[in-house]
Amino acid sequence: MKCIFCSIIQGNIPVYKVWEDANFFAFLDIHPLQKGHTLLIPKNHTEEVFELSDELYAKLFLTAQKLSKSLREAMDSKKIGLVVEGFGVAHAHVHLIPINNPHELNPEKAYKASEEELKETQVSILDSFKELI
Amino acid sequence: MKCIFCSIIQGNIPVYKVWEDANFFAFLDIHPLQKGHTLLIPKNHTEEVFELSDELYAKLFLTAQKLSKSLREAMDSKKIGLVVEGFGVAHAHVHLIPINNPHELNPEKAYKASEEELKETQVSILDSFKELI
Repeated sequence: MKCIFCSIIQGNIPVYKVWEDANFFAFLDIHPLQKGHTLLIPKNHTEEVFELSDELYAKLFLTAQKLSKSLREAMDSKKIGLVVEGFGVAHAHVHLIPINNPHELNPEKAYKASEEELKETQVSILDSFKELI
Repeated sequence: MKCIFCSIIQGNIPVYKVWEDANFFAFLDIHPLQKGHTLLIPKNHTEEVFELSDELYAKLFLTAQKLSKSLREAMDSKKIGLVVEGFGVAHAHVHLIPINNPHELNPEKAYKASEEELKETQVSILDSFKELI
């Protein structure tokens, strides 16, 4: 079975991309817990975050740190919640979620974002991320 | 105001410790979301995970990776959820939570663990962690 995240990276499934470098790719979750919920994934297929090589694993979290600072500014949230749960798609992914209290990380809060919200959020984030590129 | 996590590291507040090295300290959360919920913290006081130096930040997550593998075995859970939310105590901390589905990360699931549960869990985890020491 083809990996949906690999298809996204290859450009075969359209997403609201907000970041990319040689190793990683970030895009908006279409079922966010909160507005601006971003998924950061390694480009090379690995099933789980904890299975990445030490080097790539450390780089993944350093990238998450860098993106979080800009994401917090872009979304004007108090914090960025960082979550690895390892369920859902079997391609390593880190959730970056703009939150104003820890209860906003409740997985039950996931909703289907409208195209309008995703487009608008992408613009805000890209504007904030461009200094990182 | 004295930092409660600094007091814990200094041994002034008793906790169910499960791991320690030169840089980090890990102990059981007394209000776990799930049994075996562990907090991993840097020994040097820093308010937020994202404010750590790149070197210590990378080491923190590499330590989380190492502990997660043993924690999963000890608690016989499908995954270890890794969460940074940055609220609560203003001393950087990473949550490592044994989970069998992503809904088990719901912050509303926090409960007051009994001393008996904490003692028993500590024994299981220490037994699994001893190979790491």
